[in-house]
Amino acid sequence: MLIVTMIKEMNHFFEPKTIAVVGASSKKTSVGGTIFENLLKQKNKHRAKIIPINNKRKKIQGIKAYKSLLDVKEKIELAIIIVPAKYVSSIIEECEIKKIKTAIIISAGFKETGNLELEKKLNDAIQKTETKILGPNCFGIYNGHNQLNTTFSGKEQMELPKNGNIAFISQSGALGLTILDSLANKTTGISKFISYGNANDIDETDLIQYLQKDKKTKVITMYLEGIKDGQKFLKNAKETTKQKPIILLKGGTTKESKQATTSHTGTLAGNQKVYESAMKQAGIIQAKNLEELYQIAKIFSIEKENKGKNVTIITNGGGFGILTTDEIINNELKLTNYNKKTKIELRKKLPKKIAINNPLDLIGDATPEEYEIALEEIIKDKNTNIIIVIVLFSLPGINKKIIQTLIKIKQKIEKTNKTMIVVSTGSNYTKKMITQLEEKNICTYEYPNQAIKAASEFAKYYTDTK
Amino acid sequence: MLIVTMIKEMNHFFEPKTIAVVGASSKKTSVGGTIFENLLKQKNKHRAKIIPINNKRKKIQGIKAYKSLLDVKEKIELAIIIVPAKYVSSIIEECEIKKIKTAIIISAGFKETGNLELEKKLNDAIQKTETKILGPNCFGIYNGHNQLNTTFSGKEQMELPKNGNIAFISQSGALGLTILDSLANKTTGISKFISYGNANDIDETDLIQYLQKDKKTKVITMYLEGIKDGQKFLKNAKETTKQKPIILLKGGTTKESKQATTSHTGTLAGNQKVYESAMKQAGIIQAKNLEELYQIAKIFSIEKENKGKNVTIITNGGGFGILTTDEIINNELKLTNYNKKTKIELRKKLPKKIAINNPLDLIGDATPEEYEIALEEIIKDKNTNIIIVIVLFSLPGINKKIIQTLIKIKQKIEKTNKTMIVVSTGSNYTKKMITQLEEKNICTYEYPNQAIKAASEFAKYYTDTK
Repeated sequence: MLIVTMIKEMNHFFEPKTIAVVGASSKKTSVGGTIFENLLKQKNKHRAKIIPINNKRKKIQGIKAYKSLLDVKEKIELAIIIVPAKYVSSIIEECEIKKIKTAIIISAGFKETGNLELEKKLNDAIQKTETKILGPNCFGIYNGHNQLNTTFSGKEQMELPKNGNIAFISQSGALGLTILDSLANKTTGISKFISYGNANDIDETDLIQYLQKDKKTKVITMYLEGIKDGQKFLKNAKETTKQKPIILLKGGTTKESKQATTSHTGTLAGNQKVYESAMKQAGIIQAKNLEELYQIAKIFSIEKENKGKNVTIITNGGGFGILTTDEIINNELKLTNYNKKTKIELRKKLPKKIAINNPLDLIGDATPEEYEIALEEIIKDKNTNIIIVIVLFSLPGINKKIIQTLIKIKQKIEKTNKTMIVVSTGSNYTKKMITQLEEKNICTYEYPNQAIKAASEFAKYYTDTK
Repeated sequence: MLIVTMIKEMNHFFEPKTIAVVGASSKKTSVGGTIFENLLKQKNKHRAKIIPINNKRKKIQGIKAYKSLLDVKEKIELAIIIVPAKYVSSIIEECEIKKIKTAIIISAGFKETGNLELEKKLNDAIQKTETKILGPNCFGIYNGHNQLNTTFSGKEQMELPKNGNIAFISQSGALGLTILDSLANKTTGISKFISYGNANDIDETDLIQYLQKDKKTKVITMYLEGIKDGQKFLKNAKETTKQKPIILLKGGTTKESKQATTSHTGTLAGNQKVYESAMKQAGIIQAKNLEELYQIAKIFSIEKENKGKNVTIITNGGGFGILTTDEIINNELKLTNYNKKTKIELRKKLPKKIAINNPLDLIGDATPEEYEIALEEIIKDKNTNIIIVIVLFSLPGINKKIIQTLIKIKQKIEKTNKTMIVVSTGSNYTKKMITQLEEKNICTYEYPNQAIKAASEFAKYYTDTK
């Protein structure tokens, strides 16, 4: 299929005009009930017409229900299938008859549970249809831009993230949902979330192809356990990473966890070393864990493209400067050697007790004014690519003025080819201050190791990969 | 000096009956003003008499001041010195005349700024006195048990941690203060915090010797940049780690950061590889960053001694089970092979759709009741040493009942030789639930990598070191 056509068709997953929910239920605690309720709740935002399909009831949650997809007169763009596994293949046949563009099979009970008979029937039905299918054994999608949500989230137990530019593809539904929830109180948001499960039709390669062209997505993050067609995936990933970063967390990297991936999403996880090196060659950034996945995605989400690996540290805590330096060296970045002019100006303008080094340690009693003097010079320094500003609020010289200083510098930096990251460790007061910076789109981290890991992947991607 | 005598004398730092503040000030934003104010604020808790020494004023913050230590009639147990560096050595001479047991020199401006003349004068004075001295260039101490606080914290910008059993020794004052603040909203608390700066008298070895015998300290955590006497330190550390764990974060591990350590605390950081291997031999746990330092300390603070490296995972998210398995294998732990009886009971009692494996994946719709069945069997399993319970609240089967289940299991586990850790990732609702578990002294982590790193160091310490 032509990629333009593919993208047009895939769009029906995210912006359908009509959605049929096969297996919609009035019981709000059931999967069919939760999904249907979620769709109704955000109706004014995604503006899709929602049609329940239920062969036993005339109305579902107050809405007229149909016995079968075939009874619906209107055109349907997306079918969400929640019926038991044994009925799924016949529903897919109905999708083909109704010429439905896209379908999400939430139902589980195929190869991942060892039911190879149902697996074969499903694959046969998929073979014969032009409907594009996500799943089975998946949670479907969440579109940050119109709040369309086919997952079973939305209860008081979980929240959904803001609209943003990070796409998240997850082979595991539960893991995906949990990450959506944990992103809910972050300032960086989600463009599209896709849980694709067993991938009997649409797979990880189709999804990165789609997201590569998606204008709302700036960063692609993924949780994978296995890859259906390695060659195809790597070829496409290599093309995609020339456009935008892919950050991957791979589960099932040890012998011991591979058995579990088979019963989880029915995939075979391959040899880890081979994987890692192939992924690297394709320009994919590999996260070691969920924490890293988010932290690396954050810098790409907020900061604009910037080449170069020279880092300048400004700090009011000597120990933090030292720990940050260690991280810089261990993460293949470099400490900036200031331009001659920068050195002269810093020496002229900063108090004598401050040594003009990198890290630039403004000492424990540093004031917002001293930070400003330092930053004004560093943003003019030709050799600096990335500025790490460490602000420890527990020290006596610092006060709220530093927030305005940093916001002012951020505005100036937007016009330069530099990147600024703020690191600040602390409890309630610090968190309040950090929120103010994040609201102004300043990229912040709690600990030096988080900031430098992210900065390192950021610098390597724009300097070496893209 | 005999160790018993040393400990008795060191106690005067933490439980002095009389404190003289040399350089106390009425200006509350100054260092001398903040420290004096902090001491007065917690007076009803630490019950020390506070005497201001100031050669210009008759009263400081409403309290009668003396011109010099020598003018005070009473016995003084702790002197806190905040005067400019050039006056410090003469104050130390006065401490000797007054037979003051302990002194903290907050003042900076010695070898760390290259002032070798003042450095020599200070060392000469230290040589001639029996007063035990902490610093110079340090922030002093915080005693979690009586709230005695000689640092310049206590403003709205920072908070102090709860009373607890983690001791924290920091060569860097600012870093120490920041960590104190960031511990403030954790359930695990601090026994004693000690910022010891340039260590001209009391050094890291004296401090671990002291904390080894301190009954209120269960875990010793440290941030070091350099070590004064490597042989002595390692010998003492080796003795200490037979009693309680030492977790160390070392700053200045790269060539690039070593220059900074010299101007920061005046220490020379040695060769990193040699360090690491010597530390390992002494049984010291090495944290890679501040995050890890806390996360490892947490499990030791909460959990009782337990040998064995077999881990059982119970989860309602397959992907989380897989990621946790990868971490277990990569961190030198093992997946438990269940005892035969456990397998039979689990199979008999759990629904058929749940495969009896490790990870024990209770599947996305797992209920608190299913968790209880599984946990009741696992706590009887002879082969299991550590139980990782993953609870994802974004999934539909889970509800608040799981909290009661986990609290009940925790009570039972107290009587076994097993350790239970809960892992739960999510936003506001999850954080609320986790707080309820932490209040019942259940050890929790947000991500699998954090939990397994901590569990691994815990298991290795009790199985191989102690």
